[in-house]
Amino acid sequence: MRAELALIGRGNVARRFVELIDQRAARLASDHQLTCRIVGTATRTHGANYAGEPCADAFEVIARLGRSRADLRIVVETTTLDVRNGEPAIAHVRAGIDAGCHVVTANKGPVAFAYADLRDAAAAAGVRFLFEGAVMDGIPIFNLVRETLPAVDIVGFEGVVNATTNHIITAMELGETFEAALARMQEEGIAEADPTLDVDGWDAAAKTAALANVLMNARITPLDVRRTGLGASTGESARRARASGRRLKLVASARRDATGAMVCIVEPRALPADDLLAGLTGSANALILETDLLNRIAICQLSGSLSQTAYALMSDIIAISRADGSRS
Amino acid sequence: MRAELALIGRGNVARRFVELIDQRAARLASDHQLTCRIVGTATRTHGANYAGEPCADAFEVIARLGRSRADLRIVVETTTLDVRNGEPAIAHVRAGIDAGCHVVTANKGPVAFAYADLRDAAAAAGVRFLFEGAVMDGIPIFNLVRETLPAVDIVGFEGVVNATTNHIITAMELGETFEAALARMQEEGIAEADPTLDVDGWDAAAKTAALANVLMNARITPLDVRRTGLGASTGESARRARASGRRLKLVASARRDATGAMVCIVEPRALPADDLLAGLTGSANALILETDLLNRIAICQLSGSLSQTAYALMSDIIAISRADGSRS
Repeated sequence: MRAELALIGRGNVARRFVELIDQRAARLASDHQLTCRIVGTATRTHGANYAGEPCADAFEVIARLGRSRADLRIVVETTTLDVRNGEPAIAHVRAGIDAGCHVVTANKGPVAFAYADLRDAAAAAGVRFLFEGAVMDGIPIFNLVRETLPAVDIVGFEGVVNATTNHIITAMELGETFEAALARMQEEGIAEADPTLDVDGWDAAAKTAALANVLMNARITPLDVRRTGLGASTGESARRARASGRRLKLVASARRDATGAMVCIVEPRALPADDLLAGLTGSANALILETDLLNRIAICQLSGSLSQTAYALMSDIIAISRADGSRS
Repeated sequence: MRAELALIGRGNVARRFVELIDQRAARLASDHQLTCRIVGTATRTHGANYAGEPCADAFEVIARLGRSRADLRIVVETTTLDVRNGEPAIAHVRAGIDAGCHVVTANKGPVAFAYADLRDAAAAAGVRFLFEGAVMDGIPIFNLVRETLPAVDIVGFEGVVNATTNHIITAMELGETFEAALARMQEEGIAEADPTLDVDGWDAAAKTAALANVLMNARITPLDVRRTGLGASTGESARRARASGRRLKLVASARRDATGAMVCIVEPRALPADDLLAGLTGSANALILETDLLNRIAICQLSGSLSQTAYALMSDIIAISRADGSRS
């Protein structure tokens, strides 16, 4: 099966993705009868092109991909996200679906702000919209539930989903100040130059909304998540927790209340030391799913990185090729 | 799609399975266009029958199922296992495949002793042989790797996979004697009347072989696993570990050495307190997968039970119906 890809966004994740499909080309061909060719690219700063010809913008690249006659036409969306409204990723996803392309994205915005609409639009257009890399750096959370937990309802979840705050809290437990810990994270490239979206819990809230929308059919946005970030007293709380045998973590959680309304919360919590989430250090993250049939199942990534996110994009593309292969 | 099932073995897991497919019948029909009907049963003590007529044994039940004209013919194998040779489960699986039936089993024996042969026989016969409930009580470990980690190699694993020994070690940490802890586990129905297979690490070794065979294409049997069970000094080791901030666990692990040979070990290990496996208490179990592309990923079940194993059988049946539906 011959897939043609348009890369919308060309940052670190996209670069690693391009390396990865090159490195695994033989495996994709032998195990999945799939060849991938990048036919178009659009970046904010270096312009856009399709088949070697310049384009006006990402939307023209997407439209031209839609007219290709490849077996699979796939938009790979990895632009820099405005996490407060999900753009421009949402517009790119919508344009891809409208052009009759499958869309894979590593951005949480579309799923956090517009999941139900995009899911329904993709279904109506007969294309797939996948986003395994959007929330947990490539550990297979959405594929896990869709492919391996049939006939199971997810009734809630609880997780540690933001690496920057996890690093900072761990450092503060050991006596470092918030400012020193943050500066070190920035030097090491873990925290963003503007870390407020991580520190104030906004990134975790966007991931919580994305997870709740997909796994629990919640129809919320990040604005519906009750959110408490790290503050001046967090270091003291972290040290006090540790002294009493507990561990402070920024915990993201979701459940339905007695009326069926979603209750989604991001807040620092002092967890018992033997809680699964208490042991997560550094860039580890984890999600505990509360299910109706299997009690609690957790999936953890013990060392996240760019490579995982790039892998998630590739695994979504393989999922598309498998589904398409079994249809024809 | 109309599935006809023969239950080989009719113990607690099979009973819970029958309840479950009844409880979820509407969901199976709406989400998976699948109806399941039990047409045959074979037990060691209460005889065998097919379509209401008595049969000589399990093999006659399987042979008659093979002549049915249902869309899907599925043998559901849950007999009591001789974990030292994998029988009679292996013979039942083989008979099912030879009769042209799909086979799902909750027994680890076939995968621990004869995986490659049974896999190849099933492929040659055009049927599926699935066993999600065989090792980790229904958490989706085999489906996880097969369905959600395409193009990833598993290069090793480490886990806590036996609930009885985990319960006993936890109790001994808190000062209980081995004998008292074991007696309590037996009263509560957690440990078997004959607990030696758990206590001496044999059950964990069989699971290790099963995981290594399927996830790492190992072609070993439980006899190839280096095995140290719990002994007279384990309580003292557990208390000493805990006093120094570590936790003793019976750890199952596998990797390849520099020559490519499998090194599989089951032994008590004192783990750092923040190791993911250290926090597992009671019937929790977990497996950490070491991968070539995603570093370390863990999947944990925080509260295992019979229901999970029964669910695993159902999820295997759904997987069979999905694959069959996409083929036709």
